[in-house]
Amino acid sequence: MDKGKPEMTNRIVEGEKRNSKIKRLRKLRTSIAEKGLDALLLSQPENLRYLSGFTGSGWLLISGRNAILATDFLYVEQAKGESPDFEIIRIKGELHDWLPGLVSDLGWHKLGFEANFISYDGYHKLGEAVKTKQVNLELIPTTGIVEQLRSIKEPEELGFITKAVELADAAFEQAKAIIRPGITEKEIAWEIEKILRQKGSEGIPFEIIVASGPNSALPHARPTEKTIRSGEPVLIDMGARISGYCSDLSRTLFLGKANKTFKEIYNIVLKAQTTAMEGIESAMDASQADRLARSVVEQAGYGDAFGHGLGHGVGLAVHEFPRLGLSSFDSLADGMIFTIEPGIYFAGQGGVRIEDMVVLENGKARVLTKASKDT
Amino acid sequence: MDKGKPEMTNRIVEGEKRNSKIKRLRKLRTSIAEKGLDALLLSQPENLRYLSGFTGSGWLLISGRNAILATDFLYVEQAKGESPDFEIIRIKGELHDWLPGLVSDLGWHKLGFEANFISYDGYHKLGEAVKTKQVNLELIPTTGIVEQLRSIKEPEELGFITKAVELADAAFEQAKAIIRPGITEKEIAWEIEKILRQKGSEGIPFEIIVASGPNSALPHARPTEKTIRSGEPVLIDMGARISGYCSDLSRTLFLGKANKTFKEIYNIVLKAQTTAMEGIESAMDASQADRLARSVVEQAGYGDAFGHGLGHGVGLAVHEFPRLGLSSFDSLADGMIFTIEPGIYFAGQGGVRIEDMVVLENGKARVLTKASKDT
Repeated sequence: MDKGKPEMTNRIVEGEKRNSKIKRLRKLRTSIAEKGLDALLLSQPENLRYLSGFTGSGWLLISGRNAILATDFLYVEQAKGESPDFEIIRIKGELHDWLPGLVSDLGWHKLGFEANFISYDGYHKLGEAVKTKQVNLELIPTTGIVEQLRSIKEPEELGFITKAVELADAAFEQAKAIIRPGITEKEIAWEIEKILRQKGSEGIPFEIIVASGPNSALPHARPTEKTIRSGEPVLIDMGARISGYCSDLSRTLFLGKANKTFKEIYNIVLKAQTTAMEGIESAMDASQADRLARSVVEQAGYGDAFGHGLGHGVGLAVHEFPRLGLSSFDSLADGMIFTIEPGIYFAGQGGVRIEDMVVLENGKARVLTKASKDT
Repeated sequence: MDKGKPEMTNRIVEGEKRNSKIKRLRKLRTSIAEKGLDALLLSQPENLRYLSGFTGSGWLLISGRNAILATDFLYVEQAKGESPDFEIIRIKGELHDWLPGLVSDLGWHKLGFEANFISYDGYHKLGEAVKTKQVNLELIPTTGIVEQLRSIKEPEELGFITKAVELADAAFEQAKAIIRPGITEKEIAWEIEKILRQKGSEGIPFEIIVASGPNSALPHARPTEKTIRSGEPVLIDMGARISGYCSDLSRTLFLGKANKTFKEIYNIVLKAQTTAMEGIESAMDASQADRLARSVVEQAGYGDAFGHGLGHGVGLAVHEFPRLGLSSFDSLADGMIFTIEPGIYFAGQGGVRIEDMVVLENGKARVLTKASKDT
């Protein structure tokens, strides 16, 4: 048997993965230098995976010279396997137990940390330990450094996300056959999950929403024992995961012949979505992107019923940069991948949401999602 | 049809649930008063669920007089349904946008917050907003107030956990039939998950571990595409969830006739576990409980290969108070439910872990887990 070929392909893939991580580290080191930091301390799980490939629990310490992965007994063997380009350090105890000594040995004096990920208590204890141990170290809060890098997807990442989108699309089309009066929301959600995972999704990136009738008015509804009935909207929100990368898809169906109100609302949401898809441009403020869709809903008189943002970046996390909403300060750029998901909800009655994923390329949004929008 | 009876039962159950939440609030209010706080701000999800029944994302504000649940558009309808005894407030924006005004209106001056759950950034922004808005408010870090309450289980909670333990036990016995040479770790994990969920588990509380051969030396291994072979240990770690409450079960099997080394290691781990189960008493330090098992492993000469703690509390979270480990400061008490899970691991070769759940009753540990320990 000639087993040479697949092995060679695997080696090339592994090599590419390592190259992309080296490039990411290079970009990160530029940011670290620009901010005048000696090093950056990271523990946000997707940031760790993005930079090192490590999927366990631990800490990265990145300086111009060092790339350290610090983890404990539980993960140290896994770390060696997943992060061959990192120096693996086995730690014991909490951050404040081991960090001051290590940082002192390395001669760092300005250490950035993830301010929206380290707890008040973790920061406080670390500060106390630095004082007690008389280490000359300044702790500098940072936010979003790696998250900003992650928001611009590389071709390889676009490839994984495209596969995750295709998988969710195919699972949705297959699931439609089982959505019929008499089945419960929970049963549908479980069937969808089985389809997703049997098609190769790595678990599911978030709990599937199947919300029928009045439940569809809850944007984050959990599937219940409620039986689906004819003459009701059914809102489905689902996603897949491939090589760590997520997809996110929402559709609202109507069981039986759609009534006039449903059709009207559905068409407004669809128009809002289409308007945003066509109007969104690179370099646009994310708040302006939200406004494109929101003004359609507002002009139809339902502004109050569209209570959430237009969308969010999707990557290793199902919610990441950029955030598309009225109060967002993010800006859009080529290479970003995000959802466009306007919705209209009436408490106690029902709701409609339509969600696609797009990638910004050559200044415009290209729609990745292909799932049908027939109701 | 006489539908009177089930409805009445439901009403009684609902009534009991509300009563238990009222009792929990009463205990919490005693703690709040003892600490000299006007109110406590909470957002840790299991703490929210424990006190209010709310399973979405939001904030609780508890004072001697008020029980407020603050949440946004996405969850406000869900909150009304899940938390009938709370005053539901609809919020917009981040904590620092709405909290200072609300606290000022309520006349609170000393507000406790969850120091190991609020991020450095969240705390910092809140502090700035309090200053800018000239609100007379002191933010006081607290840790573990609700977690301590949660560590002592009520009879109803013991009931749910017992059901979750029974479900995992039954699923494990059923799954054993499919664990055979030729099947992959991932396939086994997915089969176990399907069994758990078809038997009524609410999702799974953590990713199932199926680790064979050398992989069993990774305490937190993820299932891989590795095929199970005869002559290998297979370590399985799995759990179920009932009414929000978790169970946690580990077993290590040997495919084919167990070799001498495996038998020796297995018997040491088993002896360590049995010694702990028999020796643990209420009022004992959790570090002392760990020592009971660890000294058995150490005396056998494998102390270095038992790199994690002896166990952890289990409840709404799969890891909660108490923590049983050498560096734990927790104390054991009647009503606590926790795992006893010694392990021995040799990197590159394999590992053995045996994990049962126990409840402390009348000063001693009663074992809840019934899954067989034949290898």
